[in-house]
Amino acid sequence: MPRQVTLLGSTGSIGTQTLEVAEALPGEIQVIGLAAGSNFELLAAQIQKWRPEVAVLFDEARFSDLKYAVGNTRTQLLCGMEGLLEAATWPSCDVVLGAMMGAAGLQPTLAAIEAGKDVAIANKETLVAAGEIVMGAARRKNIKLWPVDSEHSALAQCLLGEDAKSVKKLTITASGGPFWTKSREEIALARSENALKHPTWTMGRKITIDSATLMNKGLEMIEACHLFNVPMDKIEVVVHRQSIVHSFVSFVDGSVKAQLGVPDMKLPIQWGLLGAQRLKGDAPHLDLLSMGNLTFEKPDDARFPAINLARAAMAVGGTAPAALNAANEVAVEAFLQGRTGFYGVTSCVAQVLERHENRARPALSDVLEADKMARQCARQWLQNQP
Amino acid sequence: MPRQVTLLGSTGSIGTQTLEVAEALPGEIQVIGLAAGSNFELLAAQIQKWRPEVAVLFDEARFSDLKYAVGNTRTQLLCGMEGLLEAATWPSCDVVLGAMMGAAGLQPTLAAIEAGKDVAIANKETLVAAGEIVMGAARRKNIKLWPVDSEHSALAQCLLGEDAKSVKKLTITASGGPFWTKSREEIALARSENALKHPTWTMGRKITIDSATLMNKGLEMIEACHLFNVPMDKIEVVVHRQSIVHSFVSFVDGSVKAQLGVPDMKLPIQWGLLGAQRLKGDAPHLDLLSMGNLTFEKPDDARFPAINLARAAMAVGGTAPAALNAANEVAVEAFLQGRTGFYGVTSCVAQVLERHENRARPALSDVLEADKMARQCARQWLQNQP
Repeated sequence: MPRQVTLLGSTGSIGTQTLEVAEALPGEIQVIGLAAGSNFELLAAQIQKWRPEVAVLFDEARFSDLKYAVGNTRTQLLCGMEGLLEAATWPSCDVVLGAMMGAAGLQPTLAAIEAGKDVAIANKETLVAAGEIVMGAARRKNIKLWPVDSEHSALAQCLLGEDAKSVKKLTITASGGPFWTKSREEIALARSENALKHPTWTMGRKITIDSATLMNKGLEMIEACHLFNVPMDKIEVVVHRQSIVHSFVSFVDGSVKAQLGVPDMKLPIQWGLLGAQRLKGDAPHLDLLSMGNLTFEKPDDARFPAINLARAAMAVGGTAPAALNAANEVAVEAFLQGRTGFYGVTSCVAQVLERHENRARPALSDVLEADKMARQCARQWLQNQP
Repeated sequence: MPRQVTLLGSTGSIGTQTLEVAEALPGEIQVIGLAAGSNFELLAAQIQKWRPEVAVLFDEARFSDLKYAVGNTRTQLLCGMEGLLEAATWPSCDVVLGAMMGAAGLQPTLAAIEAGKDVAIANKETLVAAGEIVMGAARRKNIKLWPVDSEHSALAQCLLGEDAKSVKKLTITASGGPFWTKSREEIALARSENALKHPTWTMGRKITIDSATLMNKGLEMIEACHLFNVPMDKIEVVVHRQSIVHSFVSFVDGSVKAQLGVPDMKLPIQWGLLGAQRLKGDAPHLDLLSMGNLTFEKPDDARFPAINLARAAMAVGGTAPAALNAANEVAVEAFLQGRTGFYGVTSCVAQVLERHENRARPALSDVLEADKMARQCARQWLQNQP
């Protein structure tokens, strides 16, 4: 019996790779639900190919375009947040892959958990902004929560069969991004086209900038705290330029376990969707002999202040990580549009965190409010920049 | 309740390190049995310090010396193979650590398994020569069998929580030994004092020579076949000069898991004795940041023929690995005494394997007979060398 999967965010980078993973494992993974933000043309093509039970376009304004493009179909077509929530809780679904960008991914993921579905999380905001809420719901509902990114998948793989009490430290590896070898002065003058040249991973624009500022790693540290129930002081980042060792766990007895692989999302996608089962699929295989050297370096907080900002937000807890994430999104967008410099991104986030009125043990509404306020505050700060 | 440990081979390198491990974890590991080959003085000191329930000297000729050195004691003192067998099956014992060198370790280890004890194996001969017998007994008695060497411990740690069916390949790392960068001509002229300079590990003389010929890796490949129930063609050796990655597992889905650590036997000893439980003990902790580069290279069969000899012996199966191991022991001894050259060791083993009359599905007596015949054959070949 194949795993019945609802894929939220089917037209993005993770979404299309997920469909390739499913195509390679037809007897194991069956796509029964698809959802996209606004790309109705690609969604229509996916519906025709995959014939899911349900498909959703979040952008209601394009819904009639989708219906026209799909034509006659047995797939139930829905739209808006209501549609997303219905697809996320669809009765025949076993596991929901949450790969929608931004805050739109948060509510459907929570709804899936509340409906008792296993969840594979590829959406950073879900755990960064609402980690306490999501993990609390997952524990209450006793569902499995699988990380779908290379670092947390690596940590989860290394922790298989191990006692949580035996963890001494979780180390997240960072490629260092395009500016790792540059001076602070050079980095300060960087423009978006420089930052978009990532050395080892091909990803979306937002994530590529996060990877240049190392905010990507800051967000991953916060996610790791929630996913593995580990305090921030047991999590560290190490720069590993080759992106082969995806992360590693140090244990109290002195042992270290690492997960390695080609830099490719298909493995974490497949591992999460199959719930840690390992099958020969579409992911590429690593040849360590052809890799040359593996190197490990300390991150540099003076040139890359984002990691310390994430540490500070997590130390405050409550809604502070949501504010960090929201401010970062706004600031990265401004940087991509040339409205602020490279260090404007982290300065903006630092300012927003400083002004943030924190709320401990937040409800979902508090998180959404913190997100909104942080975005306003970030826009204001960016406008007042000389 | 601490684990009650009988330590066979307490005066050797693994034995003394095991006592340091036990000393660091007094509430977890209690040494109730000690056994040594002939070093009665150190054994006497260990008896006085550890006050075990039973202690054995294998060398019966020195037994009166031991009794005199120990003086008044509540420890029951025994000698010979009979004593080893009694200590290995001692009623209050939970786990037997088999660290006696050579064939003397085989019978007590088997006796311990038959008595339902868990066994931590640090003696290569046990699995190389009698792998089928030992693994068959372990399965029948449903006991746990923990490898106590860094490579197999690494593989076992990486396989925790994984399905045996999902293994694509087991890779054993090799330091390459002291001759890795030398030409075949230079190696051919090497003397024992050159071979005894190991770059990363401090070990006994026999093992250090095995590590120079890479026969060490050949033996480990045979052990891995038995321990993890994997055919020889799924096992490979990679040269990793830094001895930090102790071995790794490649899975069918493309993922690779590696275990890393400082080159030190205390971690595998402790992990085996505690049955995969992890506690802060006496083993040193790894700092990857201070490690520099990690490199991986293909082994070179032309300069180091031992790995292919082990492959060949395992392909034949039956008593062939026992003959390989016995011939190697005799040839290494001859090399250490200057009676043959470096390539004499592998030539001798190749000759013995060629003349070996194999016996499939051997009983223990067949294995012991094969061991004896191979030693005779090796001695003969060495004598007839010009």
